[in-house]
Amino acid sequence: MATQQRALRTRRRVIEAAAAVFDEHGYASASITDILRAAGVTKGALYFHFDSKEALARSVMAEQRRSVMLTNTGLHAQTVIDITHGVARSFATNTLLRAGVRLTVEQGVLGESDPGMYHWWTELCRSQLMLAKDHGELRPGASPEDLAYMIIGSFTGVQLLSAVACDRADLVERLTTWWRVALPGMVQESVLPRLRPHGSADVIAMVNGTSASHCCGDALC
Amino acid sequence: MATQQRALRTRRRVIEAAAAVFDEHGYASASITDILRAAGVTKGALYFHFDSKEALARSVMAEQRRSVMLTNTGLHAQTVIDITHGVARSFATNTLLRAGVRLTVEQGVLGESDPGMYHWWTELCRSQLMLAKDHGELRPGASPEDLAYMIIGSFTGVQLLSAVACDRADLVERLTTWWRVALPGMVQESVLPRLRPHGSADVIAMVNGTSASHCCGDALC
Repeated sequence: MATQQRALRTRRRVIEAAAAVFDEHGYASASITDILRAAGVTKGALYFHFDSKEALARSVMAEQRRSVMLTNTGLHAQTVIDITHGVARSFATNTLLRAGVRLTVEQGVLGESDPGMYHWWTELCRSQLMLAKDHGELRPGASPEDLAYMIIGSFTGVQLLSAVACDRADLVERLTTWWRVALPGMVQESVLPRLRPHGSADVIAMVNGTSASHCCGDALC
Repeated sequence: MATQQRALRTRRRVIEAAAAVFDEHGYASASITDILRAAGVTKGALYFHFDSKEALARSVMAEQRRSVMLTNTGLHAQTVIDITHGVARSFATNTLLRAGVRLTVEQGVLGESDPGMYHWWTELCRSQLMLAKDHGELRPGASPEDLAYMIIGSFTGVQLLSAVACDRADLVERLTTWWRVALPGMVQESVLPRLRPHGSADVIAMVNGTSASHCCGDALC
């Protein structure tokens, strides 16, 4: 049992070290040597857990799932807004998240084209938007699948633009504007005044660590 | 004069060859040798026009400006919609555009962080949205700068997602959905029924080459 716990700790240490290296250098320029040095483990220990640099990158990408913050404010549309604010507000302090998002965008650009994480995020939003639809929050005819794709696609680009322009210093503000403009086309007029494009108090408390954050419930988390 | 024209033709040939190589391999993996081979020019000819691979990449990025299609349908908001559809609908056939957009996204991911082209696209949209505002097309209080940032950021991400998921096969449809949802939060209710989220007939004709396309009027074009 102690051996298994030690193995899990080593695996964790390697993932965190890899995230730091990927976050700084990107996939192509990150070297296993740098990751070994940052993790303080042997090559044997690393390859016991991960077959290759690609496998390691996939594990770092999968860690994005842990950054999901599911709030319960009584409106499912607010949960979706809060998912995006949970990510946007965590970038500054969460290296694993930054690395995961960087790798996800890079693989699109570098041509590997594994849409897995995009699908995962889209599906997460879609499931919440299905609930929003069932509860009469969405405009008639609104498609949860279309809206989820629009939200995840737009968020991907807005965070990229903000990262290039000012290291994401204005991301929360840009995201808030995005929601303020997009919401009238998504939700019922009666729901609009009850939504917080800036993120609910719950998600702000979660990011600030003054409230226990909720994971997505995914088996891989 | 004949010499000058020959030099311009060589410069053009190098840019087009570089675009094909950057489009296929991306910035980091593109080699000058491959570009020379594709262009069929000497190293001396290439370095007469471009100091470095980076200078060449910047010239390819700048070529995006030529893909701007400015329609005049009587509504400035439609011109902005059409700018995005002009780009989306040209990807399949325009290697220079694909390479330029790929390089622009890559430099954000790879950490060079030159927001020049994002600024240029945002400014182009902002100027049209200023006209839309002056003509009473926008919702009261709408900020052309905020809307332009939102549009270019979202478009960047939506096209990236579509590229990763299906080589942009669904991009026009995704973009149309994006506009359909986003427009109610942007424009006056009275303007909404006159707008075509799918792109106006003018821009579709321009992309199909049945109408002369308009350049942006930028001095670098």
